[in-house]
This record gives sequence, structure tokens and C-alpha cells, in this order.
Amino acid sequence: MCGIFAVSGHKEAAKLTYLGLYALQHRGEESAGIVSFNGKKISCQKKMGLVADAFDQQSLRSLEGECAIGHVRYSTTGSPSSLNIQPFSACHKKGNISVAHNGNLTNINILHSKMEDKGTIFQTSTDSEIIAHLIAKPGRNNIKAKVKHALSQLEGSFSLAVMIDQLIVAARDPSGFRPLCLGKLDQAYVLASETCALDLIGAKYIRDVGAGEILFIKEGKIESVKLNKKSKSASCIFEYIYFSRPDSNIFNRNVYLARRRLGEELAREYKPDCDFVMPIPDSGNCAALGYASQAKLPYQTAIIRNHYIGRTFIQPSQLMRDFRVRVKLNPVKEVLAGKKVLIIEDSIVRGTTTRAKIKTLRQAGAKEIHMGVSCPPIKFPCFYGIDFPTKSELIAANKEVEEIRNFIGSDSLHYLSLEGMLSAMREAEFDFCAACFTGGYPVEIPNNFNKIMLERGG
Amino acid sequence: MCGIFAVSGHKEAAKLTYLGLYALQHRGEESAGIVSFNGKKISCQKKMGLVADAFDQQSLRSLEGECAIGHVRYSTTGSPSSLNIQPFSACHKKGNISVAHNGNLTNINILHSKMEDKGTIFQTSTDSEIIAHLIAKPGRNNIKAKVKHALSQLEGSFSLAVMIDQLIVAARDPSGFRPLCLGKLDQAYVLASETCALDLIGAKYIRDVGAGEILFIKEGKIESVKLNKKSKSASCIFEYIYFSRPDSNIFNRNVYLARRRLGEELAREYKPDCDFVMPIPDSGNCAALGYASQAKLPYQTAIIRNHYIGRTFIQPSQLMRDFRVRVKLNPVKEVLAGKKVLIIEDSIVRGTTTRAKIKTLRQAGAKEIHMGVSCPPIKFPCFYGIDFPTKSELIAANKEVEEIRNFIGSDSLHYLSLEGMLSAMREAEFDFCAACFTGGYPVEIPNNFNKIMLERGG
Amino acid sequence: MCGIFAVSGHKEAAKLTYLGLYALQHRGEESAGIVSFNGKKISCQKKMGLVADAFDQQSLRSLEGECAIGHVRYSTTGSPSSLNIQPFSACHKKGNISVAHNGNLTNINILHSKMEDKGTIFQTSTDSEIIAHLIAKPGRNNIKAKVKHALSQLEGSFSLAVMIDQLIVAARDPSGFRPLCLGKLDQAYVLASETCALDLIGAKYIRDVGAGEILFIKEGKIESVKLNKKSKSASCIFEYIYFSRPDSNIFNRNVYLARRRLGEELAREYKPDCDFVMPIPDSGNCAALGYASQAKLPYQTAIIRNHYIGRTFIQPSQLMRDFRVRVKLNPVKEVLAGKKVLIIEDSIVRGTTTRAKIKTLRQAGAKEIHMGVSCPPIKFPCFYGIDFPTKSELIAANKEVEEIRNFIGSDSLHYLSLEGMLSAMREAEFDFCAACFTGGYPVEIPNNFNKIMLERGG
Amino acid sequence: MCGIFAVSGHKEAAKLTYLGLYALQHRGEESAGIVSFNGKKISCQKKMGLVADAFDQQSLRSLEGECAIGHVRYSTTGSPSSLNIQPFSACHKKGNISVAHNGNLTNINILHSKMEDKGTIFQTSTDSEIIAHLIAKPGRNNIKAKVKHALSQLEGSFSLAVMIDQLIVAARDPSGFRPLCLGKLDQAYVLASETCALDLIGAKYIRDVGAGEILFIKEGKIESVKLNKKSKSASCIFEYIYFSRPDSNIFNRNVYLARRRLGEELAREYKPDCDFVMPIPDSGNCAALGYASQAKLPYQTAIIRNHYIGRTFIQPSQLMRDFRVRVKLNPVKEVLAGKKVLIIEDSIVRGTTTRAKIKTLRQAGAKEIHMGVSCPPIKFPCFYGIDFPTKSELIAANKEVEEIRNFIGSDSLHYLSLEGMLSAMREAEFDFCAACFTGGYPVEIPNNFNKIMLERGG
Repeated sequence: MCGIFAVSGHKEAAKLTYLGLYALQHRGEESAGIVSFNGKKISCQKKMGLVADAFDQQSLRSLEGECAIGHVRYSTTGSPSSLNIQPFSACHKKGNISVAHNGNLTNINILHSKMEDKGTIFQTSTDSEIIAHLIAKPGRNNIKAKVKHALSQLEGSFSLAVMIDQLIVAARDPSGFRPLCLGKLDQAYVLASETCALDLIGAKYIRDVGAGEILFIKEGKIESVKLNKKSKSASCIFEYIYFSRPDSNIFNRNVYLARRRLGEELAREYKPDCDFVMPIPDSGNCAALGYASQAKLPYQTAIIRNHYIGRTFIQPSQLMRDFRVRVKLNPVKEVLAGKKVLIIEDSIVRGTTTRAKIKTLRQAGAKEIHMGVSCPPIKFPCFYGIDFPTKSELIAANKEVEEIRNFIGSDSLHYLSLEGMLSAMREAEFDFCAACFTGGYPVEIPNNFNKIMLERGG
Repeated sequence: MCGIFAVSGHKEAAKLTYLGLYALQHRGEESAGIVSFNGKKISCQKKMGLVADAFDQQSLRSLEGECAIGHVRYSTTGSPSSLNIQPFSACHKKGNISVAHNGNLTNINILHSKMEDKGTIFQTSTDSEIIAHLIAKPGRNNIKAKVKHALSQLEGSFSLAVMIDQLIVAARDPSGFRPLCLGKLDQAYVLASETCALDLIGAKYIRDVGAGEILFIKEGKIESVKLNKKSKSASCIFEYIYFSRPDSNIFNRNVYLARRRLGEELAREYKPDCDFVMPIPDSGNCAALGYASQAKLPYQTAIIRNHYIGRTFIQPSQLMRDFRVRVKLNPVKEVLAGKKVLIIEDSIVRGTTTRAKIKTLRQAGAKEIHMGVSCPPIKFPCFYGIDFPTKSELIAANKEVEEIRNFIGSDSLHYLSLEGMLSAMREAEFDFCAACFTGGYPVEIPNNFNKIMLERGG
Repeated sequence: MCGIFAVSGHKEAAKLTYLGLYALQHRGEESAGIVSFNGKKISCQKKMGLVADAFDQQSLRSLEGECAIGHVRYSTTGSPSSLNIQPFSACHKKGNISVAHNGNLTNINILHSKMEDKGTIFQTSTDSEIIAHLIAKPGRNNIKAKVKHALSQLEGSFSLAVMIDQLIVAARDPSGFRPLCLGKLDQAYVLASETCALDLIGAKYIRDVGAGEILFIKEGKIESVKLNKKSKSASCIFEYIYFSRPDSNIFNRNVYLARRRLGEELAREYKPDCDFVMPIPDSGNCAALGYASQAKLPYQTAIIRNHYIGRTFIQPSQLMRDFRVRVKLNPVKEVLAGKKVLIIEDSIVRGTTTRAKIKTLRQAGAKEIHMGVSCPPIKFPCFYGIDFPTKSELIAANKEVEEIRNFIGSDSLHYLSLEGMLSAMREAEFDFCAACFTGGYPVEIPNNFNKIMLERGG
Repeated sequence: MCGIFAVSGHKEAAKLTYLGLYALQHRGEESAGIVSFNGKKISCQKKMGLVADAFDQQSLRSLEGECAIGHVRYSTTGSPSSLNIQPFSACHKKGNISVAHNGNLTNINILHSKMEDKGTIFQTSTDSEIIAHLIAKPGRNNIKAKVKHALSQLEGSFSLAVMIDQLIVAARDPSGFRPLCLGKLDQAYVLASETCALDLIGAKYIRDVGAGEILFIKEGKIESVKLNKKSKSASCIFEYIYFSRPDSNIFNRNVYLARRRLGEELAREYKPDCDFVMPIPDSGNCAALGYASQAKLPYQTAIIRNHYIGRTFIQPSQLMRDFRVRVKLNPVKEVLAGKKVLIIEDSIVRGTTTRAKIKTLRQAGAKEIHMGVSCPPIKFPCFYGIDFPTKSELIAANKEVEEIRNFIGSDSLHYLSLEGMLSAMREAEFDFCAACFTGGYPVEIPNNFNKIMLERGG
């Protein structure tokens, strides 16, 4: 997964981008990059690691100019490589081009092959480079026409920030898989994957970039163009369930409230006899609150999160098992001992971490442990940008609910039903992509796509 | 404030100490140090900064031996200095001595003067060095007698871990101001400021080190000795209110539960008409939960904490005000807009941060903001180890409650009463030091003590 | 200027390349890079700074495979950029291609324009990327034909190491401007800019890569192909005078001996009445020895070089002038005081450093200072890879010898004559490029080439 | 070995000290430290590593005040420890005291024992701490009397810079083993182990600190006091032979010229039939020049030194033997091949490095290799500060000259005779310590001193 941010027309464009990426850090912890344009040339700083570690005063100062785009990235398949850090930058006849991309192109293989046949060389294995090559291709003279023609050839998911000299381009694929919003800070326009990044810099939210829309932003003016291709709306429901920050609005709806409603729905479906309900922090927090409120069950936070986690940490060699869980989360024995506990999680992917957490709760003395999950079983991989593991590692793709319960070691287990999930999202006026639950992929996937992605290493 | 940890008789003594300090990080973020003894000589690693940054694989590997003591430290008055990082180590006739100290000696000035007259030179401005000098003084031949005699001369608060070659000494002052507990991991004995450090390494809690007790630990054997001086129990109540981790037990009671009860008491005293109650994360979390449960008021977590905070961060130069608050905590507008909100804080020290947070909530659209504080007004400085600012900076030492309310900008403000606070602690069978609320100092303070501490720079 | 190194067929290819670059460090202190190929994929490590700082154990270990190429680089015109660190790597239809280049292409502008018209995008401003694009162009199917065709389009100077999957290609331009030699270590083939790099790894020198020759090296076999274009030999004479290491053989002749002969010739032309001759260390060492031996004048090393220089150094703010010279070179007053001194330099570029050194010698008490230079005045910029400043900064392009003498402050000044220089090189059986002295450029330079290079920033 | 530097009365005292230590780097590469005093308190920066790495702009800026002392240090026996980095600082009744020491106290054991009996604790194993304790002892009230009394108790070698608040004290032991000189820069006084440090900062040499002299420097005034103890002059002759920089004057004589004369004497004693003479760079340079000049033999520098050495370097694992020699020094084959060569070294300690160098020269094709050493065989350890290995590792303590020749692999070997060495020093008007050659120790050594030093680890 990735987060993108862009600024057009602000004296501290790079610094704002730095802050924006900081707010979007949860969308990509592997690498961070910013490219800025000062009217003459681009400057670029990219590094493996967290935003706070990737930049310092000196590197931020070197990012001159009033336009900037930035990117944070998660490693997907393949080993992470410093070559693949985005934004991707190059220069071509029309000037300098930089691309920051969130999503996953599904026709990458065809595009790649065609270009190689024409002698194109590739420096990275990113979708961003392909997009830059497509924009640079000769033909149309007008840069906006070039961009529209290039983006028309893309299939799959893309939320984009492109900088071509002082022109900033924003775009979302016709299905609108990934979020992207537009904000304003004084006279400057700002683009961000989530609104929490606008909040941090004090920018005002204007609107979402539309599905299938291209925005050209330059010198305080915005022009909107539509991609010709049309698709049914297919916004990623998993952004609500797990990925986005609860204080963000995405697809025009608040995440915190959505998660609470998921918890409320769960309470309607599943009511084991328990002394209290508690979340696995922090991913289950909102749903657990919704559950407690709906079920009128006492709410406890009987696992304490260590706030210093996240930093590099020296692993104890032979010392202890389950350490990775314990160092992050410590149960409060006095609360748990002898109690029947309902824990709420947002989702289960592999099941191994959940299993370790339940074991920790048992060791802390819980008498019964019941588990509610605020989404249905994840049975299918995502080809539009969420970095689920391959099908063989998705526990719900291979096991029935009872088998999963047995594996994770809880006394009972309930997943929110598909209907319950959609009902919690009832107020949304558009459709979601729920392919990871249903297998109904809104945009066609090539047969060997999984294999291609693995080979391309990214 | 400081955190201490020690291990006697484990092959990975230094690694365990590293983990223990990691769990105690909240007690001191300024510096970290570990000293180990391998039967022949001591090894020492000390650095400014967080535990995770202060040590690496190589430095941990260099800390050989089965005995180790460690320390994390907050800067108090004076500028922090790498010379003052604890543990303090030296060698004397009886071997190598290292001292890790949590607390504040009140007769430091007298001890210091006496020693200087005898030609003693000091390398640091820490209490630890004084303690080492006292232990080294000629006279008694038996090392245990030496230690007891040395500790008898100390006044004020001290929870200590001392390592004299392979002998580990633990001690608490007769009033028992600061916590210190004893645990066991396999055959090894472990000492820690809080039980959360025992939990992390999987050690079993045995008992607290008693007030006025000295423990001598060596080769699997423990000997307990009592200091002759006797005092009334005066355990720091502020450890429960704010300082300790909620998953710890200190002074034999659980912190999470204590905080919930403080919130429940608060609900008995103060019930403004509000739509919901919410904590300022994370310090107000437990009390807010207790409040909501007692008051039967809906509970929301309408401020989201950024989990990447804590790292070094580049301050935006001219960009924005209130940024430090905003980067840590982002309000969820959709929850707050148009609502009457009750926020719960554990305590107010200067009031400036609270003021900034309330401003942020107003900007997010809250209609009314009421504030409950789960302890009484802090009116007096602490001379026993809590790093409150000087009296002139303590807002409650200088303003009435209504003035404070006006300063922080809330619509109403209520502090938990002294009786309410003590009632919440009712089940404890010992007495607390509540001098910061009442001014009743259990151990006499020299007239010019505040000035002395400032001059000594630490 | 740059240095290149390559290995084909050795288990520790990257480590050997690291050592080779270390030996070639004088050819480029700005950045260093290594790319290796392990049969499946390339690995790449590139950094600003010296070789010893650019790599560590971990980064070397990550460079897997039995083939590797490496590069060290000086900043030329334009600001140095981490994007421009060589080798340049990309992947294309025939596999992964990496290019390390020493030299300067003179038709870069034409090649660049043509490609941009076809929609090519450029990530760097290096000649290496152009070469990679040329090799990738569709047309010939055979990779060797592709390479030959690509290199046929290059004009100017190039000594190249190219890696296309496991195929290593070495090539020199038809004029043979820059050195490149072939060596063998056990079964592995090795390429290096200078033989000193072969010496360091214990490889045996086989032969120079010929001017206009392409070598294809793969699995222990070498194939030699000639570029069709023919040119008169034009090896850079300045490599002997200044650039190469004295312990290297380049163009099949030893540098140390060549420099001694330059000093001997100087002694035949210039014999001021002096007490002794001394070098400016270290560049004038060999010529001064040759001079002393021929002139039968005592030889002193009356300036001592600080061996710790080279590292980053904190400049004293307002403290002292001439500090940069003094910190590197300290004169021995006892030797200089009251003496008539002849100092020997290899060359004078701007004259400012020489001026500072002469001032230092005067302050140390020298009575008379005479100066011999072991090459003629440098009057013309180099377009084939030596990073002379622009013409306006070359002191001899703008001043007569007497004016230069006056500027640098010596009592007399003599440059070795062109005839003397060539006579010292008499035994070489090929012709030199001496364009920096004569202005006779062996390969045509586009009118606006200087400007183009500045704009391209590298 | 160590180097010391001090400044009294200059606004940039710490920066000057930094530069002075930089010039004295050859006297200690293991650690570096500076302590300054700003009228109120001391500031301190100490680190393992070279001067250029130990300080940065920020740490230098933090060293406020017009007085400063600095120290560079070599590891002697025992493992190096960051605790032992000098200067040693502490505070006592009379103020802050910092000590920088070059030398070796021979009665350390007695002093140490006495103090421990009185309950003194030690933080380091350095002589400097002992000196600080002695000065702090109660008794005399006048600080100068205190210092004189303290230094009177020291035996062995010491060149000292002590800072007691704004008072700078310089002192040398009565035998004058180690150098220490006084200089002036504007109104400031400067102390340095060697004059090359005065040269770097542009200070004027005033005079050497006398053997047995104490200087008290404060506010532009100097007071000289003599220690009561008297001894025969015993300046370390090895400072001339190897240790000091050739551009320094020590003990009032120039090192470069002394080394040349040692080479001239060698030429009178030893004249093998050779084609040319060459030094092992850089230690043999001056002596080889003297030899060549006296013997009228051609002089070559047929080994080229790599100027990038000194930095941390990744050792090639299984790649090659003799690599450490090769990476520093590369022979010029064209000069050596088929020749009879005389190489000049300043001294032979263990013999292993010399052996490796001779092997390298043989591999480069030298027909005969003769070796001249510009001092007699080193047969005895030094107890006054030179870090020779123990007797068992000194090759000349265990082997006859012919055995040594056989071990190092030369065709002949000659050591300068004791008479020749002293004759080369003829103009010096004082006596030398030559105990490492003769075993005649000018100051008595306790029987078990070697063992004590090893145990104390430094």
C-alpha cells in the first residue's frame, strides 16, 4: 500500500509534503520520497525507512520550489529496494516528470512488453515508471492531451500525483479504488490520500478527486478532465475496515464512525455471554466501542500498548517466545483474571498474530475468550493495492470458521456477515469493492497476474 | 524521574536489563545505561536518548556477565549532561561499585560539603555518586555493614539498585516513596521499578522491596536487612495518577484499576450535561472509562493519537501554531461537531498543553467542552523525585479553579477532591504521600533545597 | 574524472570491485557505486562519498554474484547529485544492463535530442544512461551486434565497462583517450582504469584494452571486436603528468618513471642558483626527484604532509587565513630558513593554491623561491574527461608566464617546454593528446559544447 | 602514547584546541577529548576515534569559554575504554579540575593503594585521575601549593596540562621524558606536546616547559615554580627516531634534521653494494634522504603510499594475504625489477610488518634487498610512555641481528650503532633516555610494574 501527497503553489511546498507524508505514514512504512520543482530544476530526496528518519533539516532545505509531490510505500511482494522508492523522476522533452502512485496496474505486463519491444529501458519495477514512459511517448503535442492519452491506457487501480515541471496532475482510476482528496491552504492546492494529512497542515478539505477524473493544477488554477473509460464505482471497503486512519474521511465518509457502526452491527449478530468487551489495540478500538455501546456490555482496555514500539529493536536471541507480541501489548492481569472476555478485532489475515494474542490473554488468567471480527472472512487476494499475502497464506481462504477458531484458540468466533458489513456502510451512496470477501473482482485480472507481480518484485 | 532494573544470576543479564529498561522507558526518556559484571570486570554502556537508540547488538554483546543493573532517566532541573547518565560506576578497595537510583536525596548538600572538605572529587552531580562515595568510605570491613551504614545517612527518597562486583543490593527509603519490586526468572532474581518490566521478560513477581528494607542478592541467595530509621509509609500517590504504566502493579496494587476508580469517583462529584465523555489520550484513558461506566454516559475516543510520534521530528519553521499538539493528536470532527463534550484528564501541571488541546477541540466543532481532572489541583512542588516545575510554573499554585478554567478555555472545570482521591485508593493498607496536593511533606526539606538542586544541575 | 573496475567470473566479484575502486579512489572522490549480477538479478549499491564510506559489510554482502562493475566519480560541472552516481542500471528486453563510463561524449547533445524526440525519458544527466539507451534500441537481435552498433554512434572519449546480465563488455574509444587495462586473477577476468587496482587485488596484468576495441567477456572467454571508425592515437598526456597514480602503468608505460623523466627534462631547461630542490607533496614528488638527480642538486622534503587529511574537517570560523593549505602541509622552518629554494610542481591550474603555498614557504623563512613546473602552461580546457575549470579560470589561458610568476609570488618560474615534455615521453610508441597545452583537439568539439555541459549539469 | 594541548585566554579556546589536537593526531589515534571552562562551569566532549570524527560543529560550539585543555590517546595495554578517554574531569572544593597527561607514572600502584585505603573510589584506570585526587586532597589551602605538593608525589614520566577553573597548569617531570612547549597566539598562551601544533594555529613558539618545572597560567600571567626533586635530563630519544612529527621541534631541536643525521651516520657505518636507496614510507623518509645524500647513492621512492588509508576499511574475508601491507603501500615494479635495493627504516619493533614489506618488494622483482635501520636494536620495554609491546614480542630482545635478518628476509641487515645514534644527536646539550636500547632506566621501575600495568588495563 502507499500514500501520496502533493502541493502546488506554496513557498514551503516540500516541508508541507514532509508533514503530509508524516500523517500518512501508516499507509507505507518502508520508504519515503519527495520531489520538488523550483521553476528550473527538480530536487529529489528518497530513502528507505520512516518519514521522520528519511529526511532531515538539510535534505528538506535542498527541496526548493513551490511545487512538490511525495510518497510513502509498503513493501509488497519481492524484496524492497532503494531503486523502487517513489516518486519516480525522469526528464523528457516536455520537461521533468515525477510520478507518485497508489494502487496496482493490472495490465502492467502488456504495457511493459510493448515498451521493451521498442527498446525502452527500465530502471525500476514500479508502476510509476511505466506511467512516466507513457506520458513521454511522442504523438500529441499538448501536455494535457498526452497525459489523458497515457492514463487511458492504464487498467487496475491508480490514485496518482504527477508533477511535470510546475504542473501538478491528480487522477483516480474509473472505479475509484483508492482515495485521493483535494484541499486548500491559503492560495496553495494540496492533494492527499486521506484527509488526516490535510488536518495536520491545517488545510481545508475541498472535495475528493472523482473516480475517472484528472485534475490539472497550475498557478492557482484547476482544470478537470474526465477519462473516457467508465466503470462502476468500486471503492475499497477495506480502507474503512483497517487501512485508513480513523480520523480521516475517505470516499467522503468518516472512518471512525464507519468502524463504530461495524462494531454495532457485530453486536446485533453475535452476543456471547461475557463480563466485558475489549479491543485488540489499536486496530479493534473503534469497532469494540461500537460493540460495547450497542450491546450495553462493559468496555475495558485490558491490553496496554507500548508507545515506544515502532523503533528498531534488538531481538532477544534465545530468551523468549511470543516476545514480539508481548513487547507491544501487555495484558492487565487484574482485569482479566477469571473473566469471560469478548475481544474485538477488525480483521484476521494469517491468524498467527491473533493466536499469539489470545495465548497471552489466557496466560493472564482470562477464563473464557470469545472473539468478534468486524468484517467477513478474507478469502481472496487483492489485486488493487492491498498487500494481502498469497491465497495459501490467507487463513480464511483455506479453513472454515470452526477450524480458524480452533487455530487461534478462542472459545467462540464470529465474523461480521457480508450483509452486516454492507448495512453498516448503508449511508454511502456509492458501491464498494469487496472482492477480498466475495471474489467478485470489478476489474479483470490476467490469469498469471499473481506470478507476474512476484517476478517483477514489487 | 527514573526507572531502575537489575538482574542477578542470568546468562543474558544485560539483555534482560535492556528489555526491562525498554518496558520502563516512560520513567525516563533522556538517557539510558547498563553496567554488567562478568566475574572479573565491569562493562558499561551509557547514552543520551531512548533505550532502543542507546544500545545496539554490539554494545549489548559487550555487556558480559550474569549480573547487571540498568537505569533510564528524565532530565530534571539543569541541562542534561552525558556525564550524569546512570548507573554511576567506580572501583574502590572492595571491588567495582555501580549505583542506579530513583528518587531524590534531601540532605545531599550536607553530605556533599562534608566529603569535599575531606578532599573528595566529584565527577557528576548525581545522587548516585554520593551513595558510591559513602559505601566506599573506610571503617567497617564487612561490605554489608558498609552498605547499611552508608544508606543510613541518606535522607529523602531512594529506590536503589547497587552492584558491588557480583553482589546486587536493592533498597528503598523508610518512607517507601518510589516503587521497587522483586521478581524471579528461572533461577535468576530480578529487580524492577514496576511490574510491567517483569511481565515483558516473563519473570514472576515475588514481592515489593519493603520500605526501609535492604536486600543483598548473590548466587541465588537473598538476605534482608532493615534500616534502623523508621518512618510512616508515604508512597507517592502520583505514581498511580500519572506516572506508572497502567499495566503495572505498584505498591502492590494495580494502576489501571486505580485510575478507573479515580474516574468513578470523579463521576460521583461532577456531572455536567454532556453528549459523551472522552479522554485526552493516553493519560486520561483509564479515568475516562471509569467515569463513563459510573456516569452511564456514552464513551468516545474522538481524538486519534499518531503512533509514529516520539521520534525526532523536524519542526516546521514559520508554518503553523499549535503544531506540536496537532501532530500527536488529531480530533475526529464528525464526532465532535455540535456536541457537548466532557473530556477527562489525569492532571493539569502548567495548563498550556490542556489549553492547546481544548482549542483544537473547539476548532473541530465541539459546542461545549467540560473538563474533569482525576486528581486535585497540584499546588506544591515534589522534592522526592517527580519532576514538577517550580512553584511559579504550577498553574494551581497560582490560580483559583475558576481562573484555571478561564485560562484553559473550558466551559466548566472540576478537579477530583482530596477525599474523592483517597476514597478511590481506599483499599490500600498504607499511607500515601500527597504533598503535591496538600503541602504536607513527610520528610523535612532544607530551606534552600530548591536552589541547591538548580545549582547542582540535576 | 572517473575510475572504472569490473570482474567477470569470481565468487567475490563485488568485494574485488570494492578493493579495485579503493585503489582508484584518486580518480573520483565524489561518489562510488557497484552493481553485481548473480545469474538472476542485479544488486546495486551507490553512494556519495569515498569508497570506504560508501560501502559496509552489509552492503557488500548484498552484492551477490560472480560479475560486477564499479565506478568512482568526480564532480565535474554542475552540482553533484546522488541520481548521477554510476554505474547506471536499467533493465531492457535482453536483460539487465549496467554502464560505468570514464570520459566525455562530445556528441551527447545530438544523441540526446534524437532520443527525446522519440519519447525517451532520462533519469540522469550522465553519458552512461545515453549509452544504455543506445544499446537497448530495437533492431539487431544479437546482443554483441547491438553493442557494437551502439558504441559506433559515440564520439569523444570513452573507456567503458558494461554488464548485460553475465556478459561484461569493455571498450575504449578509437582515439584511446582514457586508459583501461585487462587483468586476470585465477580464472576471473578483471578490468581496471589503472594497473594499481590490479596490484591491490593481486591480479596479473594481461594487456591494455586497445583504442577502438570492444571486448566481450563471459564464462572465462574473451572475444575482441574492432569498432569500424579509425582515429589517430590520442592518449591523454595529462594522465602521466598528474592524474594517474605513480605506481600504475597506463598506456603500457609506468607513471613514476615518466614523471621522473619530466623532472629530468626540466633540469635540462632550467637551473636557477638554489641551495636545494624540493617537491610540493605529493604531486611534485617524482618530478622533483628526477630534477635533483639530473641537476645534482640536494633534495629535501621541507614540507610535511598531514596524513590525517582527507576526512571531513570543521573549518575554523574567523580564526585564520591560509588555513586550508597549512592543515595539509607544514613547512620545516629549520630547513628553509635563509635558503634559496627550488620547488617543483607537476602543473598549475588556477594558481591560487600555488600562491598560498609559496606564501607559506616565505613565512617559514625561505630567502629565494624558484618554481619549476613539469609541464607546459595549461591554456585550453579539456573536452575528453579531465575536469579543468572553464577557460576564464585557467591562469595560463589568460596570463603570460611573467604575470603568472608575479601572481604566485615566486622569484622565478619556468614551465617545461612542449618539446621537453614530448621528449620525456620519447619511448612511447603512440601519440598523445596534448590539447590542453596546444589547443589541437583530436576529436571535433561542437561550438556550444561547453555551454551544453554546464546546462546538463554533469 | 598521548598528545596534549591547552589554551589560556582565547575566545575560541576549544576550537584552537581542536586544531591543536588535529596536528597532534599521530600521538594518539584511539580517542580524543576537550574540556573547556567558561567562567562558571566546565563543558566536556570526549569520544573514541580520530579528532576529525570525535567532534562536530555542534559539540565544538558547546565547549564554551576562554580556557581549554585537550588530549589524544593511544591504547596501551588492556582494552581501550571510553571511560578512560582524557582529559579526566571532576569537581572538588576548590572548583573544577581537569587533567590531561602524557607519560606513565611508575609509582601508580603505591599511590593507588594508599588512596583506596582511605575510601577513595576510582572511575578510570588512568594516571590522570590519580593526579586529580592528589590535587584535591585537603591540607594546603593555596591551590598552587596544593598542585606542587601533589606533583611532588609523582614518579615516572609526566607532561601535564591541568585546568582548575580558569587556572591552567603545565608541568614536566624532573627527567623531562616527554616534550611540552609553550607558545603564544595574540594575547593567549598555548601549550602543546609538539611545535607542529603551534604552527597549525599560527602561534609563536616561546620556549619548552622545563624538566621539573610547573607553570601557572591565568589571565595573561605566567608563574614558574620548580619541583624540589632533581634528576638528570633524560629526554626520550625515540621521540626523534620515530614518534614526533618531522616538522616539529622537540626538546628544542628539529626532528626532520635529526632524522637526516641518523641516516647520514648509518651511511658511514653500512654501505652495501646497491643500485639505489629507498625509504619505507613514511617513517623511513628522512633517514633515507640523509643516507642517500651522505652515501651519494641514487634515491628512489619505489613504494607508493595510498593516501586514502586511515579510514575504516572492510577486510576482504578469504581473499588475500599480506593485504594490509598492500593496501597501504604499493611497490613500483618498473623501478624495482632486477635491482639491488637498500631500504631504510627508522626502527624494527616486532619485525612482522617489515617482513611483509620485504616480501612485497621481492614479489615486485627486486634482486637483492638490503636493510638499514636508523637506530640500534630495541631490546627493552619502555616504562615512560612509549607503547612498545612486552619483551617477549620485541624481536631484538629475543633474537640476534642475523636471526632477525633471517626472519625479515633481507639479504643484509644493519642497525645504527648506539655511538652512531648518539653522535647524530651530538649537538643536543642534554642527555637522552635510551633505555629501550640499553636497559639503563633513569627512573627506577617497581619489580612487578609490567604486571600492574596489564592488570590496570591502561
